[in-house]
Amino acid sequence: MQKPSIPKGTRDFTPDEMAKRNYIFDTIKSVFRLYGYQQIETPAMEMLSTLMGKYGDEGDKLLFKVLNSGDYLAGIDPAEVASLGSTRLTNHICEKGLRYDLTVPFARFVVQNRDKITFPFRRYQIQPVWRADRPQKGRYREFYQCDVDVVGSDSLINELELIQIVDEVYRRLGIRVCIKINNRKVLSGIAEVIGEAERLVDITVAIDKLDKIGLDKVNEELAAKGVSAQAVERLQPILHLGGTNADKLADLRRILAPSETGLKGVEELETIFSLCGSVGIATPLELDLTLARGLNYYTGAIFEVKALDVQIGSITGGGRYDNLTGVFGLPGVSGVGISFGADRIYDVLNQLDLYPASSVEHTRVLFVHFGEAERLYCLPWLKALRANGVNAEVYPDCAKMKKQMSYADSKHIPYVAIVGETEMAADKVMLKDMATGEQQLAGLEEVMEQVKG
Amino acid sequence: MQKPSIPKGTRDFTPDEMAKRNYIFDTIKSVFRLYGYQQIETPAMEMLSTLMGKYGDEGDKLLFKVLNSGDYLAGIDPAEVASLGSTRLTNHICEKGLRYDLTVPFARFVVQNRDKITFPFRRYQIQPVWRADRPQKGRYREFYQCDVDVVGSDSLINELELIQIVDEVYRRLGIRVCIKINNRKVLSGIAEVIGEAERLVDITVAIDKLDKIGLDKVNEELAAKGVSAQAVERLQPILHLGGTNADKLADLRRILAPSETGLKGVEELETIFSLCGSVGIATPLELDLTLARGLNYYTGAIFEVKALDVQIGSITGGGRYDNLTGVFGLPGVSGVGISFGADRIYDVLNQLDLYPASSVEHTRVLFVHFGEAERLYCLPWLKALRANGVNAEVYPDCAKMKKQMSYADSKHIPYVAIVGETEMAADKVMLKDMATGEQQLAGLEEVMEQVKG
Repeated sequence: MQKPSIPKGTRDFTPDEMAKRNYIFDTIKSVFRLYGYQQIETPAMEMLSTLMGKYGDEGDKLLFKVLNSGDYLAGIDPAEVASLGSTRLTNHICEKGLRYDLTVPFARFVVQNRDKITFPFRRYQIQPVWRADRPQKGRYREFYQCDVDVVGSDSLINELELIQIVDEVYRRLGIRVCIKINNRKVLSGIAEVIGEAERLVDITVAIDKLDKIGLDKVNEELAAKGVSAQAVERLQPILHLGGTNADKLADLRRILAPSETGLKGVEELETIFSLCGSVGIATPLELDLTLARGLNYYTGAIFEVKALDVQIGSITGGGRYDNLTGVFGLPGVSGVGISFGADRIYDVLNQLDLYPASSVEHTRVLFVHFGEAERLYCLPWLKALRANGVNAEVYPDCAKMKKQMSYADSKHIPYVAIVGETEMAADKVMLKDMATGEQQLAGLEEVMEQVKG
Repeated sequence: MQKPSIPKGTRDFTPDEMAKRNYIFDTIKSVFRLYGYQQIETPAMEMLSTLMGKYGDEGDKLLFKVLNSGDYLAGIDPAEVASLGSTRLTNHICEKGLRYDLTVPFARFVVQNRDKITFPFRRYQIQPVWRADRPQKGRYREFYQCDVDVVGSDSLINELELIQIVDEVYRRLGIRVCIKINNRKVLSGIAEVIGEAERLVDITVAIDKLDKIGLDKVNEELAAKGVSAQAVERLQPILHLGGTNADKLADLRRILAPSETGLKGVEELETIFSLCGSVGIATPLELDLTLARGLNYYTGAIFEVKALDVQIGSITGGGRYDNLTGVFGLPGVSGVGISFGADRIYDVLNQLDLYPASSVEHTRVLFVHFGEAERLYCLPWLKALRANGVNAEVYPDCAKMKKQMSYADSKHIPYVAIVGETEMAADKVMLKDMATGEQQLAGLEEVMEQVKG
């Protein structure tokens, strides 16, 4: 006999958890589809040659590697096996790994399937990813990512539509959010005009922490990274830019005047804000110059979404990248995309208690009965209800009424149809509304009417 | 630059393939829900201690094992590493594996979550599984299983409902099938009455092949396994049982009279056929004594579903088992379940061309345009259509009309709204029906009306 367990950092999802997760994913998917995005899936395992080197040294270590099948030591000199050490032995005995994110598999997919897909290619993908991170609260070794990207189009209409998607998804979920926007070209321009173009990464990594560690610590970090005192001084007014988005853009236009790249970034931001204004976005949009998010990746717009009523990190983020597929031999494919953080959205909805009752309701009516004859009596009722699209069950065993009723309770079933001799004689059931406790004799039509809700 | 590839036996799913697969899964899921089944998910990785020994020696070899994270060789004597050999080294360097089916993880789930779930527990689970099988046509190393089971109930109502589910799923998919039914207790009874109770497995393995290899070969195999000539002779009339299901059951009742177990099996079959008769099952049901399907597992009903119009193996199968969770320390949990073969159903629908057009249609209307002003003009139209639930896109870039139209074609978009100066001036679009080629100037209301379909 074994006491069963699952690998640390992984989770089982019970029916109620699944129902809530499905509510989130279904909401997101239906919005994606409104905008013409199509679903793809890629294999859980990718070749390690596809994955390695894409996530930095740390990422390489966090990849789950899959042992080659069969006699994986065949062809390796036994003496060598002992001397190789873990890291180098891995190269000999593993050629596959579990996907670490959806971006690299997507890039690989686009290149490998370029003859089968239509550009601009609008895809969404909702699949689990695996990372051998140290498990901690809210961080798992298996979790779902939910990515939406369009590749093969430079148009800023795509940025607009991603903002519209965010706006609509959170409207439907009932979560109040704000969308922060920045632009990599503006960040480049800033580094340029303060005279530290080469230290772009250090600068943005530092100012990305402004919210968390405050201005003094940011300035300390900049100095520590070798950014000159003069440059740090020049940066200060930029970090203090205030007012409306339009005010900030006007100031930036002036500050970044010497930088062609910077001005291009300002122009992109102006276009995006203008497009948003023309269609009307209910969610507040905020130009945030401290937003960087894995900067090396992005080349244009950078997005991040924060929940307003819950203290939690970003719940959606993304941006534009210009060379996603270059590493796989297809250069010049520009794209823009965002990723919804399903686990965090799940937590936000739980904390704010925003799940609609229907999202955790599975069965509308349970038939409970006093014995075998009654159970048989239920079958045509069930058939008729199901034929009308009503999720319905009969308690399958002959059991005490209390047990049957508690089954209904724990499955959140809103109606129970009780069948005993009296009901059978009358060609009815005793229909009980579990919320109010009210009950009444009802024929099939009445049951149908009442439970359809 | 890398030429990308994916591990052998795995697949990418393109948008059209995903749409077809979603059509299958959505159809199946909505029927499951009609019957009160609830979805769960389990982690892709399970502890090898959970998986090993559950699928036979061959299965143990076909498990994908995941390398422990970090310095997985630490604590192993280097001299030993070289001498252990692949199989034994695996025990030292891997503690996790990818799930091989959904049954063992489900059993583990039930035991581990028994305080959170309600019995009888009706669950469905649709997730990929991984097997290091030799890839071949129609056999993959990663494929989805789609299982529906109820545990914690002995009632044959559950068998009835699984048959109703099969009936309804294939009715909705438009696939003509027949359902074959057998019972493990009847097979035990047969082995008993021909005097070979101990050779039950050999006998059923042999007669399971009747369809494929014919009666003579079956008899040869039985003899080769050591079944006595007398027993083989006694078996012949049983293999030749004909007529209706009722005829067969009547004959079996007579033949199995000396076997208590056999008669119990006959009685179960009689009850199931009678329940099916009382609710009316459109799908033909056939009592098939040669049906065994991994017999060791099943203890009561055994099911298999065959497509009538396509030569392909079983597309759904399952049965009742009495001790699913015993190995994990929870004895006495009886259950019954079936599994839908998604890949085969996919192939059947393709071969019979049964996908409804709507299943591969993503976007209802594409806006195409002659330039920037026209593109902006489309935005409020898109917003209005989407607000009414119509999936709509604008071609995001300024491109030649031909390119925009061919985008619509390859995405199977049924309507295109063409916008040029004339249309803008008239506050209209030129709406083209891509199937008929007809086009007409239309205002928003008319577009809405026409594309809603």
